[in-house]
Amino acid sequence: MEQKIIGWLARSFLDKKIPVGIGLDDAALVDIPKKQILLSCDMLIEGTHFRSKEDPVHIGRKAASVSLSDIAAMGGEPLYLLVSLGLPRRYGFSDARKIFQGIRAALSPYRAKLVGGDTVRSRFVVVDTTIVGYIKEGKVLTRSGARPGDSIFATGCFGDSLRTGWHYRFTPRIKEMEYLRKKIRITSAMDASDGLHASLRTLSQRSGAGFDVACGEIKSRVAKKDFLLAVDSALFDGEDFELVFTGRCPDAVRTARDFEKKFKVPLSVIGKVRKGAGVKFFDRESREVRFENREFRHFTE
Amino acid sequence: MEQKIIGWLARSFLDKKIPVGIGLDDAALVDIPKKQILLSCDMLIEGTHFRSKEDPVHIGRKAASVSLSDIAAMGGEPLYLLVSLGLPRRYGFSDARKIFQGIRAALSPYRAKLVGGDTVRSRFVVVDTTIVGYIKEGKVLTRSGARPGDSIFATGCFGDSLRTGWHYRFTPRIKEMEYLRKKIRITSAMDASDGLHASLRTLSQRSGAGFDVACGEIKSRVAKKDFLLAVDSALFDGEDFELVFTGRCPDAVRTARDFEKKFKVPLSVIGKVRKGAGVKFFDRESREVRFENREFRHFTE
Repeated sequence: MEQKIIGWLARSFLDKKIPVGIGLDDAALVDIPKKQILLSCDMLIEGTHFRSKEDPVHIGRKAASVSLSDIAAMGGEPLYLLVSLGLPRRYGFSDARKIFQGIRAALSPYRAKLVGGDTVRSRFVVVDTTIVGYIKEGKVLTRSGARPGDSIFATGCFGDSLRTGWHYRFTPRIKEMEYLRKKIRITSAMDASDGLHASLRTLSQRSGAGFDVACGEIKSRVAKKDFLLAVDSALFDGEDFELVFTGRCPDAVRTARDFEKKFKVPLSVIGKVRKGAGVKFFDRESREVRFENREFRHFTE
Repeated sequence: MEQKIIGWLARSFLDKKIPVGIGLDDAALVDIPKKQILLSCDMLIEGTHFRSKEDPVHIGRKAASVSLSDIAAMGGEPLYLLVSLGLPRRYGFSDARKIFQGIRAALSPYRAKLVGGDTVRSRFVVVDTTIVGYIKEGKVLTRSGARPGDSIFATGCFGDSLRTGWHYRFTPRIKEMEYLRKKIRITSAMDASDGLHASLRTLSQRSGAGFDVACGEIKSRVAKKDFLLAVDSALFDGEDFELVFTGRCPDAVRTARDFEKKFKVPLSVIGKVRKGAGVKFFDRESREVRFENREFRHFTE
């Protein structure tokens, strides 16, 4: 079956612009437009990142989108994707092909191409994607540039991603970030794959600055009667794949309105960077609230 | 544990020459010396590619070496490696670290750096490596350039790789290929990961040329009394990770002797490229011999 998949990939994904494309050789040979590239890999595992019975199209779509989201968080453009697949016996050729159809769907809005892969027999489905991107204009966005006085921004909604299936259908914020970089002087950025709380904590720690977060400004994916319950879900559920970033902007209200109009996605100013350290949360009455940290972890020890 | 691994990686593998290195951000940012890069990914799975009880150092060493071998087969130099790890509960921090120590050992003879990774919980060990390389000098070596009249070459010995543990300790032929390219006008090349037979068949098919192979010239890793049994093992056992290539060379005997002296590895001329199609095998008396094709496959459908 491996030869069948490779043959199908070579026919379906071959691109004359790529010097040595997928399925042809020991490695792909590809062109690079600039002298630096972005590199990131993500492993998705059956039972952890998707259900066993999930439609393979959704699995492929998620795998590619998770990688694309990493490039968005760096302020980059995606160029190339490589996919390693571990497939169990119950997966036939048509299921394997569906995974690649999902990958193709996720890549289609961008110029990114599938250029490499490996397929091996496994006891359950494993999908590992590696993405190559680059910074088209401006500087790379790291996690460490937040400065006191910056606003804290977030795209989209948070919480209940797994329950609502959002993690299978989210849009990697590539085009959104390209737009935002022109409107906002972004100082640090990260995607919220492990939850909003983890992103805020990481940006704060890596930047060496304190974050004050207005919980009332965080948009929930699912409306809840209990305010704190909704915020807790937004902070810790994870798998939102939205952008969390800091920066300065002459007219944040107008920028948010324009952004929402253009992308049909909210842009929220959820807080302010201050001197000091740590992330503090405040309710609508500006009283500090504390949450039990239940950040999403793969390892529980 | 994921944070512990990321922290350890960032401390152990951090390199000031890399703009954004491992464990720091959503993606790594790295420099590229030329306008084209080589890309390849390989997935290794517990039970298929290594034993469950195997020393994690060996697993890491093999994973990185398999990727390095792909770059060697293209005539390239390795630059960067990314590693995704799926780890079961029985794997503690020290086991995970051992995998990375094996990776470091495999990379150490080269300038290649570990720049990215992902670590997730899995029911068994999965290691996926993606390598970025480049062509320092000359052209890329593909599988499709063999021409009638070319000699067929192979480095090293074949067969019994799994039984002897060779697949855990093989040397990716990066430096060997760099040397060989200067001595031989190489027309096509491939590494023998799925066995010598699969490599010969693929080079022949992709080049649109026939291959005549002199079985008596193939070097066996383990001596066997039965000639045909030894050749069968060399052709089909797989996991040799030697280079198989075609090309022209003014003095092949001297080149082989010099190569062997320099690298302490044999270089054999195992046949000749002819017009036509297909791979034919001949014994020491130049009689054609046939082998039952048992090429290594991951899927047995």
